[in-house]
Amino acid sequence: MIRWALLIEYDGAPFVGWQTQQNGLSIQQVLEDAAARLNGGEKVASIVAGRTDAGVHAAGQVAQIDLPDGWTEDKLRDALNFHMKPHPVVVLRAAPAPDGWNARFSAVARHYRYRILDRRARPALDQGRVWHVPHRLDVRRADDIIEITAEARSFLHHQVRNIAGTLKLVGIGQWPEARVAAALEARDRSAAGPTAPPDGLCLMGVRYQDDLWSESQLDTNT
Amino acid sequence: MIRWALLIEYDGAPFVGWQTQQNGLSIQQVLEDAAARLNGGEKVASIVAGRTDAGVHAAGQVAQIDLPDGWTEDKLRDALNFHMKPHPVVVLRAAPAPDGWNARFSAVARHYRYRILDRRARPALDQGRVWHVPHRLDVRRADDIIEITAEARSFLHHQVRNIAGTLKLVGIGQWPEARVAAALEARDRSAAGPTAPPDGLCLMGVRYQDDLWSESQLDTNT
Repeated sequence: MIRWALLIEYDGAPFVGWQTQQNGLSIQQVLEDAAARLNGGEKVASIVAGRTDAGVHAAGQVAQIDLPDGWTEDKLRDALNFHMKPHPVVVLRAAPAPDGWNARFSAVARHYRYRILDRRARPALDQGRVWHVPHRLDVRRADDIIEITAEARSFLHHQVRNIAGTLKLVGIGQWPEARVAAALEARDRSAAGPTAPPDGLCLMGVRYQDDLWSESQLDTNT
Repeated sequence: MIRWALLIEYDGAPFVGWQTQQNGLSIQQVLEDAAARLNGGEKVASIVAGRTDAGVHAAGQVAQIDLPDGWTEDKLRDALNFHMKPHPVVVLRAAPAPDGWNARFSAVARHYRYRILDRRARPALDQGRVWHVPHRLDVRRADDIIEITAEARSFLHHQVRNIAGTLKLVGIGQWPEARVAAALEARDRSAAGPTAPPDGLCLMGVRYQDDLWSESQLDTNT
């Protein structure tokens, strides 16, 4: 068996989240069903770097699967993508994993982005990709989009969405800035602001000690 | 009657294009139906800067409508947006038009962007927003996204999409660069490459001699 590292992009909107559950389709199930097609119908278990919640997107999720010998990087990526159609989940790259590598435990950092669309009009082009806040926020901005980026070895459940929800309260003037410091000091979830919706959140990338995605593969897709 | 200039954003995917036609819903119809609700049910005719085709998006379309006195900028924008729900069309700003101003004929430039997603994997996050070209293109790029921007007083029908289609042929090596110059020289549509799909095209903005969107309005949406 070969352990493969997979770089994955998905639109989280139609899914119950990464992890397989009883109440709907998960991204994990879409991936594992496709992998099973390449494994004679036998189940293939996956491990993922960030178990994103329902509605959360990913531009650079990383997962691992084990498969029998015989795949090249390009053939595996294309075959998984073929079988995951028409779901909005794609493998951007596949690479054989280094010895002892684990998609979850070898990760040294996860990078998330939370986007707020701060204007009166609801989103037409970014529907499902942003948190629409019609009240004018008093924070740093590029046009009507406010981006909150967060990178850490790991995050607590809902942590980035709680940060976004808290900063919005500051931005509309409902909380003074000092209260954010106090909430952080308290180390108590209930001291923070409300959880922002999943739409604005995207897992942008995962960092590992080893560079998984060699440049060579960039040129092999012609 | 007051002439209003409207700055409009829309996702072109579900529409037959800007212009009203027999075979489906147009953006024009969504706007005019909403405007009629503010006019005692009487039809309101609109004029637009760029009559985008089916599937083409806009981040900064400009249209005009005439309405009886009594609206403020904010109230008109919010009322139109309320009545255009749930269609992916929104008015970003409304402003009283200068004397003699016409959304179409007063425009001095239109600015379009065409986006190509150049990678093997189909788009998951940008589905419907890009032209997916799985062959590696030999042109300037930021990651896997190639952006073609074009600004001119006016464009011929399909002109930006024809440029994108032609540049793709150069990028995959099917056309030498010199053939583009020859095609331009020929001033003959049939000498150019194929028309690229609408998904990648977005009308980013329209310029007028007068600045329609005063800064003051930016601060009135709190």
